[in-house]
Formats: sequence, structure tokens, C-alpha cells
Amino acid sequence: MTDKPANAMWGGRFQMSPAEIMQEINASIGFDKRLAPQDIRGSKAHAQMLAEAGILTKSDAKEIVKGLDQVQAEIDAGTFEFSVALEDVHMNVENRLKTLIGAAAGRLHTARSRNDQVATDFRLYVRDAIDGIDAALERVQQALAEKAEAHAATVMPGFTHLQPAQPVTFGHHLLAYVEMIARDRGRFADARKRLNESPLGSAALAGTSFPIDRKRTAEALGFDRPMANSLDGVSDRDFALETLAAATITAIHFSRLAEEIVIWMTPQFGFVKLSDRFTTGSSIMPQKRNPDAAELARAKVGRIAAAFQGLAMVMKGLPLAYSKDMQEDKETTFDALASLRLVMAAMAGMIGDLEPVPEAMRAAAGRGYSTATDLADWLVRELKMPFRDAHHVTGSIVKAAETKGLDLDKLPLADMQAIEPKITKAVFSVLSVENSVKSRTSYGGTAPQNVLKMARHWLRRLEKGRAKG
Amino acid sequence: MTDKPANAMWGGRFQMSPAEIMQEINASIGFDKRLAPQDIRGSKAHAQMLAEAGILTKSDAKEIVKGLDQVQAEIDAGTFEFSVALEDVHMNVENRLKTLIGAAAGRLHTARSRNDQVATDFRLYVRDAIDGIDAALERVQQALAEKAEAHAATVMPGFTHLQPAQPVTFGHHLLAYVEMIARDRGRFADARKRLNESPLGSAALAGTSFPIDRKRTAEALGFDRPMANSLDGVSDRDFALETLAAATITAIHFSRLAEEIVIWMTPQFGFVKLSDRFTTGSSIMPQKRNPDAAELARAKVGRIAAAFQGLAMVMKGLPLAYSKDMQEDKETTFDALASLRLVMAAMAGMIGDLEPVPEAMRAAAGRGYSTATDLADWLVRELKMPFRDAHHVTGSIVKAAETKGLDLDKLPLADMQAIEPKITKAVFSVLSVENSVKSRTSYGGTAPQNVLKMARHWLRRLEKGRAKG
Amino acid sequence: MTDKPANAMWGGRFQMSPAEIMQEINASIGFDKRLAPQDIRGSKAHAQMLAEAGILTKSDAKEIVKGLDQVQAEIDAGTFEFSVALEDVHMNVENRLKTLIGAAAGRLHTARSRNDQVATDFRLYVRDAIDGIDAALERVQQALAEKAEAHAATVMPGFTHLQPAQPVTFGHHLLAYVEMIARDRGRFADARKRLNESPLGSAALAGTSFPIDRKRTAEALGFDRPMANSLDGVSDRDFALETLAAATITAIHFSRLAEEIVIWMTPQFGFVKLSDRFTTGSSIMPQKRNPDAAELARAKVGRIAAAFQGLAMVMKGLPLAYSKDMQEDKETTFDALASLRLVMAAMAGMIGDLEPVPEAMRAAAGRGYSTATDLADWLVRELKMPFRDAHHVTGSIVKAAETKGLDLDKLPLADMQAIEPKITKAVFSVLSVENSVKSRTSYGGTAPQNVLKMARHWLRRLEKGRAKG
Amino acid sequence: MTDKPANAMWGGRFQMSPAEIMQEINASIGFDKRLAPQDIRGSKAHAQMLAEAGILTKSDAKEIVKGLDQVQAEIDAGTFEFSVALEDVHMNVENRLKTLIGAAAGRLHTARSRNDQVATDFRLYVRDAIDGIDAALERVQQALAEKAEAHAATVMPGFTHLQPAQPVTFGHHLLAYVEMIARDRGRFADARKRLNESPLGSAALAGTSFPIDRKRTAEALGFDRPMANSLDGVSDRDFALETLAAATITAIHFSRLAEEIVIWMTPQFGFVKLSDRFTTGSSIMPQKRNPDAAELARAKVGRIAAAFQGLAMVMKGLPLAYSKDMQEDKETTFDALASLRLVMAAMAGMIGDLEPVPEAMRAAAGRGYSTATDLADWLVRELKMPFRDAHHVTGSIVKAAETKGLDLDKLPLADMQAIEPKITKAVFSVLSVENSVKSRTSYGGTAPQNVLKMARHWLRRLEKGRAKG
Repeated sequence: MTDKPANAMWGGRFQMSPAEIMQEINASIGFDKRLAPQDIRGSKAHAQMLAEAGILTKSDAKEIVKGLDQVQAEIDAGTFEFSVALEDVHMNVENRLKTLIGAAAGRLHTARSRNDQVATDFRLYVRDAIDGIDAALERVQQALAEKAEAHAATVMPGFTHLQPAQPVTFGHHLLAYVEMIARDRGRFADARKRLNESPLGSAALAGTSFPIDRKRTAEALGFDRPMANSLDGVSDRDFALETLAAATITAIHFSRLAEEIVIWMTPQFGFVKLSDRFTTGSSIMPQKRNPDAAELARAKVGRIAAAFQGLAMVMKGLPLAYSKDMQEDKETTFDALASLRLVMAAMAGMIGDLEPVPEAMRAAAGRGYSTATDLADWLVRELKMPFRDAHHVTGSIVKAAETKGLDLDKLPLADMQAIEPKITKAVFSVLSVENSVKSRTSYGGTAPQNVLKMARHWLRRLEKGRAKG
Repeated sequence: MTDKPANAMWGGRFQMSPAEIMQEINASIGFDKRLAPQDIRGSKAHAQMLAEAGILTKSDAKEIVKGLDQVQAEIDAGTFEFSVALEDVHMNVENRLKTLIGAAAGRLHTARSRNDQVATDFRLYVRDAIDGIDAALERVQQALAEKAEAHAATVMPGFTHLQPAQPVTFGHHLLAYVEMIARDRGRFADARKRLNESPLGSAALAGTSFPIDRKRTAEALGFDRPMANSLDGVSDRDFALETLAAATITAIHFSRLAEEIVIWMTPQFGFVKLSDRFTTGSSIMPQKRNPDAAELARAKVGRIAAAFQGLAMVMKGLPLAYSKDMQEDKETTFDALASLRLVMAAMAGMIGDLEPVPEAMRAAAGRGYSTATDLADWLVRELKMPFRDAHHVTGSIVKAAETKGLDLDKLPLADMQAIEPKITKAVFSVLSVENSVKSRTSYGGTAPQNVLKMARHWLRRLEKGRAKG
Repeated sequence: MTDKPANAMWGGRFQMSPAEIMQEINASIGFDKRLAPQDIRGSKAHAQMLAEAGILTKSDAKEIVKGLDQVQAEIDAGTFEFSVALEDVHMNVENRLKTLIGAAAGRLHTARSRNDQVATDFRLYVRDAIDGIDAALERVQQALAEKAEAHAATVMPGFTHLQPAQPVTFGHHLLAYVEMIARDRGRFADARKRLNESPLGSAALAGTSFPIDRKRTAEALGFDRPMANSLDGVSDRDFALETLAAATITAIHFSRLAEEIVIWMTPQFGFVKLSDRFTTGSSIMPQKRNPDAAELARAKVGRIAAAFQGLAMVMKGLPLAYSKDMQEDKETTFDALASLRLVMAAMAGMIGDLEPVPEAMRAAAGRGYSTATDLADWLVRELKMPFRDAHHVTGSIVKAAETKGLDLDKLPLADMQAIEPKITKAVFSVLSVENSVKSRTSYGGTAPQNVLKMARHWLRRLEKGRAKG
Repeated sequence: MTDKPANAMWGGRFQMSPAEIMQEINASIGFDKRLAPQDIRGSKAHAQMLAEAGILTKSDAKEIVKGLDQVQAEIDAGTFEFSVALEDVHMNVENRLKTLIGAAAGRLHTARSRNDQVATDFRLYVRDAIDGIDAALERVQQALAEKAEAHAATVMPGFTHLQPAQPVTFGHHLLAYVEMIARDRGRFADARKRLNESPLGSAALAGTSFPIDRKRTAEALGFDRPMANSLDGVSDRDFALETLAAATITAIHFSRLAEEIVIWMTPQFGFVKLSDRFTTGSSIMPQKRNPDAAELARAKVGRIAAAFQGLAMVMKGLPLAYSKDMQEDKETTFDALASLRLVMAAMAGMIGDLEPVPEAMRAAAGRGYSTATDLADWLVRELKMPFRDAHHVTGSIVKAAETKGLDLDKLPLADMQAIEPKITKAVFSVLSVENSVKSRTSYGGTAPQNVLKMARHWLRRLEKGRAKG
């Protein structure tokens, strides 16, 4: 992305020369420099394999590896100077290598091409990013599960249509997101497995006549195996698309929780509090708590989903093998994954920070005849009424309570019996919010004992994962 | 989608009454009737479990199951009348059941809700669709691998930037798509595994107080397990998104092959022929072969990708649990998967039908100094020249050949030696197109022996898959 | 969209024959039959022009026009039978015409092609749809402006970050949407103007050698002029894209108001009430008011935006002139515009139906030191304090009020003077919510007198528009 | 977009502190610094109006304006240091102003807020960009029209389905794009008109109690009028969406021409040549001409369309007024417009550079019985045959020619008469490619005289536009 201020860029009768145009088209160094660590790892593996296969002398290979380590050190130290004239990360690295070690550098590119090189670098980058994402998602799950354990019995309204429907517990609500994120992690793990094949050695598109050992470089770079078709190796970007799709779905999950936090933070709801660490105030209205972090977490899904869509459009209808169009794959992928990274960090932080206000939640849960379903279920269970009839009777009783301005558990038994004579006072055991949630003991239901068990199950599982990981 | 002609719909000062509006908003039967088989399977499993758990009498359950079988039979026979007044597939089925078996039908809805019911139906539908897609993708792979085996040695130009770069074989090119589709199948398989959990028993959102056995219904419906959180069970549609993402990526792969077919079919390329079965002609220009099937296969990715994007937008920022917005999940998913089905059928058919024109491909492969890389590699291999130098020498030789208007393998040795004296006549062994492809024996390379081996490997693997499948 | 139930479509080892595939690819009649009225109008205009130009005899043209009127009458009566074998609306109409009038029907297609015919039909359809949309948007504006007039002085909190920031009036809030919709209407009007050129006479792609009069047909069909380039006439679908973009932006506006209605309808906010006509209840919880219409209005933007995106992807990279891909233009456009139609109807209805709860709004507006800005502005205006200093002083005063648990207008003058001695009791005139809104008299500000004036301005303007329209 | 290399960003167990998270969320200076010129223009206009309204002293206003000019000069000189700690462009500018002029700077923010300030800046930026885009599109049209004039009679095949259908002229083909771009310019012009209203003075969301003159600032900034509703003024981003939609449609047009250039550049087509200025070669294959510029122009539509989609998703369902989500509006808009700028520059350059190869085009145009339609039209015109019959007879004649391996204009008259006895030798006048194109004299048709006239019409029109512009 160009960085010129608008007056330079749009003002006047700007015009670009052909040379400027082609430089902007060809110079990817502005964004692909981020691939330098991957590029260097790939080149080291390639050089070592070439030596083992007798294509390079051992001493050349040794020099090359040493030189590449030096380049990486310079990058780490911030002293490496990326040059736009050298267009991309590959030429920047190779050129510096040549300065450092001389002629041997010119042998590194034997039996490979920029086409398989960039495919390798990009796969390594995405794989690294997935590992970082998995760790970050695990941290969000941990924060959610800890909070869920603490609030396994904290009652809140369960909503449908954003209208209170039936009481649930706050822990139960948070654990729903733990489950979603578990599937998100599964998607990233599957994407990782699928992308973890090495395109290196595909050369420009047809393979090579040099006796290279692709299994060797694959292994050295942590790939499970070399890709089985050289045209496929240099042409496809489905691994980026799959990763972006997983990122989009993850970001949708977070956008939902973020929206809830925004709503819960309103004075009208007042369900949760966030400290200054994740809100911004106003020097003029010191009581203000703008949930900026939640809003950004909600918004970022836009550009992440757009990255998927944009790359899909780029790849649509491209004939094999490499086309310049494919240079558009990296910048938006980098941006989308960095955006997700920020979202995950913000969510993990906010969840840890967030404090529920149980009395506000409890009060809201009690409103709106939220135990009507419990009454209907009681009629079915105790009086053997068919569900559809029980549903009807319950409606009449709620209407009676509404008319009297009473909550369900305050409506006199006589009023209920006027509608359905077989009702006994045992019914009151199911009409309170607390008893309602307690009764939902079906697997996956919101009963506090269920929630506590599940929260602890997750905490153990996450701990085990960390122990292994 | 409404079916009214434009003059009724847009003409005049049309206005809708509130009742009409709400009917259009609520009545999903126009599209969700496709879920009837899944809805009936789900209800049968639910009824049987209720009986086993003692919540329903055995005889009621028996009647319900028998009645549901009858409903399915009526649907299969085309005699079932779906009613818009009954809004959705669930009420249509239950209502018919009531007519058939009376009171017992009213007990079926015990311990469930439309929220978990529709989530169950939709998961079953998507799972069925994935199974159909997998089978169809397998057929495309089979067609590709068969053609690849037959053309393992048929030389064609390998393109970069749609410019001939290096020769490859047609079989090699086709196998690139076999690999892509293998990953596509992997994505669908992973999506299937992840979605294969049962939301049934989540009830409206909080679980239930009835002693239901969710493992039993999960098992009966072929699910691996019940979902672990009831809020999650009724609220998420990530399984649809993941499936649509897999469909999008698959469709992108097909759009690329479709584009190639369109280009190959031009008289200018003339690389392949398609029979009348997959082209349309013109009564006025009988020689015309419009590759309509390929064009449609290329275009359909638009609506498939749009379905993903559209559903992502719908789900963005929705608080838990069910919101009416989520009713938008089904229609476009149905449409996208049906579109993919057509694309796969068209591609499988076209690939089988398609006949390459080897002489046209061979002639094109020979043009453009496509073995220049082979020359450079020879210099590196035989003369131990550093790659970058070999690259430079090759450039000079090609320029010399171009000046003389000769192909590389026709340029006299003396002309080459004038540029690089160490070149011997042995060089000519690598300059023909045939020798070029033969030499690319690196794993995944285009050497005919590689391609034949890989094609047969795939044919065996596909056969095994069918044997198991 | 196929309508087969899933068991037929996905079950078993389904396979399609080439003939079935090509029929599904070619037969557009399933959706393009909606173009019949436009197709007939176009054919009538074409026939009459051909006669005037001496290409057709007057009697042939007369017969054709009479026959086409008959076809339209049959369609209106519902007796016309569309045949899939005849593939598209054009052949269905022409074929029926032949049955009705015989040989002359065969002369209708002189000097035109299906390519310019379908482009003409589709433009006419989109133009008709735009006219319908404009009328519907006008109705939404009317509903908003009427409600705004009634509630020009009804105070509610103005939100930023969904946190109360400064008080505004409900009328002011509604008028914001009147402005947005005015721009939406402008976008549709511009799209209409731009698309209102006739492609008829472009023939297949190159124009024709018949001495046709394109201005004549353009005029007869209400187009401003014929398109100036025949290749462009049959190849572009930018008019559909532009209309879909306008629809997307409109739908985004509605999604925002819909979200607000959903939030306002929660018991926590309780800002508005919707009657049963636009909500759904629950037989079991009779007090429930699910804002289904608002939720659907919020959700539909998904498929409308997706239609734009999908068509953009289809058109990307298509060489001129017609490609089969372009057949994908209609179905999703029809669906998106029909979706918008439902959204507009729902919004117009809901806005009319919706009743604010002024006391709830007023109470919420008073909370949260929402007049702090008024205090700061008073300091600037009356004490000539620089804004940044005034901002700082206000923060301290609010903090003092917060500590005492008092609203700003209840904080004793002495406390304020302790912070800023120059403050006088005149300050209290700006600290009430009512005075705050009254003071915002800058153009476009929320002062009730402004709002009333603007509401009436809009009501007059809308009335004038209807008088003209 | 973060710029950290992957090893820092994804490697290790990275974790972000709350402070880092909030800084990344809040600090928009990384991208909004591009708004500095607009921000300064806005502030100058605001200060001058405040002085005129007596809200600021004249001398304060003078100081402020002078200080702001100084800030702009520092930015132009590259000496201005943007600080992340100051978060955004507004605070960076104001803070520097304070250093330069002291206390008066603190009075600048009277009667405005960052909400209306950023809305103003962003509108000004988009307006500037539109002006630049319009000028660039005009240059593309100029290049196209010049080339079209030169090639008004250069025959090439007109394609449908990428199969040759009827001959057209190269000039005619290029003019199709001139028409498309004319509509594109129209869309940008309409967007500009619609966005050209001033939000300044909306303040935070409710207007202000200061006696500001919004018409004055609007006028000073070149806006047509102030926006009529303060909530709307700070909340909507439809102007960005509309501009991005226009950019998307424009980019689709360019992607089509780019695809054609890529195809025309293949050795198989060989229709055009591009010089080294717009292609890249290969040092190893010096004859290679990779059409990189065309490929990039084709690909960029991906990210431009994605920007629209992404922002649509961000804005979907946002309640009024400002939410932090809206900070996501700028970065992708900047990027999309800069991408379009590059595409336009590349296309203008390529079109000027591109040389057709008339003999290759002519040869291709003659193949495939491309004048069959002319024959059919002759039968209709001269023999008064109904079109459908003429179509059928033509099919038979083409088949006869095909059987004999002859072109249509080489088929003996006797063979034609064997099929339709009334055919005379006059028919040959329509069977040559040259006569075919000459005959297409209908308005908008491809006859060279038409094309020449239209090219010159455009050249005059563009010149006039420049004279006015």
C-alpha cells in the first residue's frame, strides 16, 4: 500500500511513467520482506540438500548456510537494508548473500525457481501464523473456562431474538464460546495438516532434471512430504484460502461475543463491567466506558472475510501455472491474520478483565415469565398431558399472571387450578429461576452442576494440551 | 425467492399488508421443505428415544414412527401437500402426522424445540450433501486420472503468464487437478467430521428437565456424539460456513480448469475437442462449438462464494441464541451446494468427453525456446557453471538463435561455442521438447514415467476408496 | 434453483447424464420467465420499427403485435405453459407466437439476436424494479417523517459506542434515516438514468446490415437513446451491478435501523413497542414480542450484498462479447431486488406501527451526565475559556457529582465554584436534558424546533414528489 | 497493517499486554496521517468561520491559520514527526499547532468534535481521490479513442464464448471500453455530487449551541451545502461505499480488457504486441513477454471488490451514531483507491503502447464461416425469406462449404443454388469479411465509417472536457 499523502497522490494532474508503473507492479518487497525468515530457512534446507545430493560442493553449501545465518542476524538486528530495486525478498536475500560470500551464492538457485521458492516461503509463513493463532485461541479458551468455572451458577437470561426466553447461567453462556473456539482450532489444525506439504523442488512448474531429494528438504522444513505434482505445487493457493476461511469463521464467533459485550455494557443492561484497561473514557464524561476493544473485535471480521473474498476473486479462472495475479495473495493474507491476532488478544484480555454484575443478570432473568417452559414441562411430566396441550394451558396461566401483574411463582395455586384443576402445589418447585436452571440436567444443559463439570473438564483438557504442546 | 412476474411485483404502486409481510418473513416452507426427509428421520429417532427413556409410551412411539413413515411415503409419492399457512417443514410434518395418528402426535414435541429440531435437520442435510459431493468429486478424479494415464506422454506447453514456459505433458497437467480435488475432498471430509455432532436435545436453548438420552438420538442419526453445550447447539451455523468455504475453494479449482478448456477450445489454441454433448452449436454456423458447460462451470463460483459471504454477513455480530436472522442460512446454502453439484457433473462429463489434439499441443510446446531452462541446467550440471552465470549464457544463445530464426535444437554447435566454448554436442540431448520432459524426473516432475506412475497410483487409490466407500 | 428433496438429490450414487447437465445449464426458463412482460414489450417495439423501416410488411407487424398481446394475456391469466424444452423466455414466447399467428412469427427475429434481446429485457426489468423501489423508499421516508413530526421533541439518549453520550430527540434520530434514504433514492435514480439506454439493435455483437432505426425502438421502450457501441450493448452488465450496489447500501441503512429496533425492543431498553402485526409471540409466553420483522430486515443485507459480490466475480475477467457465464446475472439480481422489496415493506410497516415509550427514553437520556458537553460549552461561551481547558474543568465537576451520587443539575453551585470560581448560577440553564436539546440550534442540530421544521420540510417535499411522480 | 516480521509476530508464545492491545486499537495514525492535508484545510475553514461568528477573536483565528499553514509546510517538507502516542492525525496536528502558537490552539476545537472532524476529512479525501480518478479515466479513454481512430478499419474476429462469431474492427472493440469508462466516470461524478455535503458542525452527534455558520465552512471547503442532520453527518459512510462500488465496477471493466490483452498476447493468438515497457522478460528466455501489467490490472479487482464487501460488513447492523467499528473505514478505502490508481495508470500506458498485428487478426477473422449471418441476412433482405428459414438455409450452405473444405466466399454458386435456387451471384458481395464489417452500418454497428466517426466524436468530446475541466 502506497503511503503518499493525498495531495501528492491525488492532487494535480498526477501521471505515472511506465517505469514507475512497472516498479509498483513488480516490487513486492514492501510486503514480502516479512517472508525473510521463511525464505532463509528454505534456502538453507535447499543448499544442504543440494550438497548431500552432490549437486553442490559441501564447502559451497557450508558457506551458503553461514552466509544466510548472517543475513538473518542482520535482519534480526534491524541493520539489513531492503532494496526496492531488488524487487522481492528472494533477490534481496540472495543479493546480500552474494556480497557476503561471493560466487557460491550464485549456485544456490540451482534446481529451483522463484515460483517454488515463494510457494514454500508462503506456506511456511501461514503455518507459523496458524501455530501462533492456535496458541492465542487456547488462551481465549482458558480465560473463558476460568470465568465459566467461577460463574457456573450465576443466573442470567438466555435470549432468543434478544428477548429473554429462559434462564441460563453465565458460565454456560461462556462455555458455548469455548466450544465454538474448539471447532475453530480444529479448522486451523486441519488447514495446517493439509498445507504441510513441500512445493520446493517443483522448480518453475515442471520439476527439474537435477537429482534433487525433495523428501530431504520437506523433512528439513518440517513438512510431512513433498507435493506430488509440480504444476500444482507452484499454482495453488488453496492453503491460504482455507486459512482465511477458518479465520473468517473464527472472527464471526468473536464478533458475536463482542456484540454481546457491547450490549451488556450499556447502562440499560449493565450485565458486565470492563475496567479502564479495555475501555476508553472521555475527559469530559469521566463515567463513560466506551467498549472500544469489543467494537474493534466486532469490526475486524469485515476485513478478514474480505481477504478471503478478494483472494477467491483473484484466483477465479486463472489458468495454470503461475500468473502475476497471484502476487496479490500475500498482502491481504498478512493483514487478515494480523487482524485476527489483534482480535484474539483483545478478546482474551477482555474476558479476563470482564466482571459480571450478578444482581443485574438475576433480576433480568426473573422477568418475563421465563419459567413458562418449566411449567409446561411439569404438566407433561407430572400430569401426562400431551406437549401441545400443556403448551396451551401454560399460555392461559401466564396470561392470568400477567393480568394480575404477578410473576409466575407468585400466582396463587387456585388461579392455576381454575385453568387446570389437576395442578398441585408441587408445581411451585419448578417456577423459580434458580430451580429452572437447576432442572436443566440433560447433557449440555444449563444446570450449574453440568456447567461446573464442563468448565473443569475444559480446564483439564487445556492444561493437558499445554503439557503436550 | 418470489416467483411473481415483474409486472405484478414491481408494476403499479404495489404495497404489502402487514399480514403479507409477516407471512413472507415467517413462511420458510418454500425452501425448507427440502429438509423433510431429515426432519422425519430426526423425529423418528427422537420418538424412539423418548419411549426408551419412559417419557413416551411404547405404543405412542410406535404410532408416531409409523405415521412418520407414512408422511415420508406421501412425500416420495409426490402426494404430500405443503401448506404455507403451516409456515415451515416442521409444522407441515407434525400437522400431517396429527391427521394420520391423532393425539399421540402432540406428544412428539416433548423435550425438544424447533430450535434444536431445525439445527438437527440442517446438519443432516449438509452431511448428506457432503456425501454426495464427495462421490461426485471422486468421479471427477477418476475421469482425470484415466485421461492422464492415456496422455502421460502427450507433450503440451506448460504456461506461466499464459506464455509458453517449459514443456509438460497433458497427463501431468490433468493430475495437478487430481491433487487439488484430493485436498477439496479432504476439506469436505473434515467439515463432515466437525459437523457430525447432534444438537438434538438442546431444546430451545437451555437443555431440558426431561431425562432424555442425547447419546441415543445422536447414535440413531449417525452423529458421533451430542453437542456439549445447548446454547452452542442451537446458535451456531459454522458448519454451513465451513462447508460453503470448502465448496468455494473447490469451485475455484474448477473455474481454473474451465477457463483452460475455454481457451484450449479456441481455434487459435485448438488443444482439445469437445463433442456436441458438452457444447452448443448454432444452426447458422454449424462448425461452432460453444463451450457452454465450461463457461457455466467457470461462472458458478460467483454464487457459491457469494453464499459464503452472505451467510458470514448474516451471522456477524448476532448475539446468542437463536435470532430470526438465522433463517437466512438455508436457502443460499441449498443453492450453492446444488450449483456445485451441477459444476461437478459438468466437469466429470467434459473431462471424459474431451479429446486432446496432440499435434497442436506438440507444435505449441516446441515454440518459444521452451527448452532454454534445460540448456541452462546442462551448463550447470555438465560445466559446473554457477546457476546465475548459466542463466546469462543461455540468454545469449537464445538471442543468437532468435536472430537466425532457428529453434534452439537447430542452432549450430559453433554458434553456441562462440558464446561458451566449453559446450559440446552432448548438449543437443537436452534441447528437444521430448527430452526435456523426459528429463524432469524429480519427484512430482513432468517426466512421462512419473506421470504414468502417478496416474496409476491414483487409479488404484480411487478404486480402493470405492471398495471401502 | 433446483427443487428436488435432498434424498433424491444427494442420496444414493446420483449421476447426471450429459443431456441432463446441458439442460440444467441451458434452460434458464425457470427464472427468466419473469422477463416475459419485458420480452413482449421489446418484441412489439421491434416489430413496429421493422415495419416502419420497410423490413417487415405492415400486416405482418400487425399480426405479430396482436399475437404478442395475446401471449401476454395468456401469461396474465396464468394459462401460458412455459416449456423447459424451449429453454428460455425468448423461445417460449416466440414459439407460442408461431402457434398463434403462423409464418409471420418467423420474421420477428430479423435484425436482432438473443444477445441484444436479453440485454434489453433485463434492462427493462431492472428499470421497472428501480421504479418500484423508489416508490417503496418514498413510503418509508413518509412513515419516518410523520413519526418524526410527532416526536420532534421526544427526548432520548444519543449514543456513541452504544453508550449514552448526549441527549437528542427521537424525531431527530428518525430524520437521520430520512436523509440516508434520500441518498439511496438518489443512487437508484442515477443508476436508472445511466442504464436507460437501449441495447436493442446491437444484434449478436456487431450491429446489422438491415436499415433499422434504433432511436425508434429506444423511444418506444422509454429509453433515452440507443447505446452507442454494439459490443458494449450486449456485453456489459454494469447496470445490474450498480443497481445491486445501490440496493446493498440501502439494505445496510435498514440493517442499522433494524438493529436499533431489536435493541430498543428489549425489556432492558424498552424504548419502543411494536404491535402483534410486526412481532411474533409464543403461545407459551404470551408476553413475548419477538421482533422478527426487524431481524429479517437486518439479515437480508447478507444476500443482497452477496448478489453484488457474486455477479462481480462472474464478470471479472470475461472477454467480450457474450459468454455463457453471463446467464448467471439474472437469478441473483431478481432475488436481491425481491429481498429488498420485502425489507422496505417491513420497515415502512414497522415504522408506522412502532410506538416510542417517551418516559423510558427520557429517563435514559438523563442518566450518565449526558449534559457535560453543555457545561463545557457554557464555560467556553460565557467564561471565554479555551475549549481544551473547559473540557478539563468539566471533567472535574462531573467527577465531583459522581462522588456525591448526584446528577449534574443537582450539584450545588458551591461545589462547582470550588473547582472553577467564575461559574455562576446561570450555568444551571444548560444542565437539564430539555435545555440541552433545545440549545442545539445549529443547522442540522437536534433542537426540537429544528426537528419539527425539518420533518415538515420533508413531508412537503415528499408530497410534492408524489404530485409530480 | 503491522509490519513486524513473522518470527517476531508469530514465533514464540507471543502475548500482548492490555496497553499494547489498546494502542493497536486506538492508534490510527499509521494510516490516517494521509488525511493531514484535508484535516488542515478543515481546521482552517473552521477557525475562520469561528472568528466571523464572533466565537473566536480575529487574532486567534489568524494565528491558528498561520500555524496550520506551518504544519502543512512541515509535512510537505517531510520534517513533521507523527507520534503514535498522539493516536490520530487530528491530535498530531493540534498538538503541533499548540507547540507552534500556544494557547490559541486550544480554542480551535470549539464547537466541533473528532466525530464531525474525521467525517469531514474523509469526505474531502474521497472527493480528492475521485477527482484524480476521473482525470486518470479520461486519459485511458483518450488512449483508447486514439488507438480506435487509427484502427477503425482493422478487422478482427468478434467473439462470443471466446469462439469467433462475426468480424468486427479493432477500433470498434476498443470503443466499447470507451463507453464503459464513460459510465464509470458518470458513477464517480454522481458519487462526488452526493458526498459533497459538509458534516462539519454536526459536532459529536447532536449539533452545538454555538452560533456557528455551517454554510460558511461548507462553502470554504468546496462543499455544496451542510448536511441536514447531525446524527447522519457523523454516522454514515455510504459515500465511501458508493465510491468503492464505482471503483469495483470500473476495475471489473479493466479486468476484462486485461484478460483480453493476456489472451491476445499468447503466441497462439498473437493479436497484439506490447513493448518491454509493459512486459517483463526472462534473462533465460529473451523472447518471452510476460504481460505482468495486464495480469496485475486483472487481479486488483479482487482487493477493490473486497474493500467494498469488507466495509459493508463493518457497517451492517451498527446502531447510530459513532461506533469504534467505523475506524475500519479508512485503511481499506485508501488501499482500494490506490490500487485502482495503479490499474488505471497501467491500462493507459499499455493501451498507448499496444500494437495490433492486423494480419493475424484478419486471418483469424476470416476463419470459421464468420459471415454466415451476413448470408442469412441477405436471404431475408433479398429473397424475403423469414428469418428462421434463412437461418436454416444458411446452416445447410455452411455445412456444404465445410464438407468441401472451402470458405463461404469460395463456395461455387451452383452449390448454393442446389440448396436454395433463388440465390444469385450478388450474394458474394456480403460474404467477405471486409464487406461484412462494412455492411454493419446500423447505429453502434462495426462498420469502419461508424467507428471512425465515433472515435472522432470521442476525441472531440474528451478535448472539450479537458478545455472545460
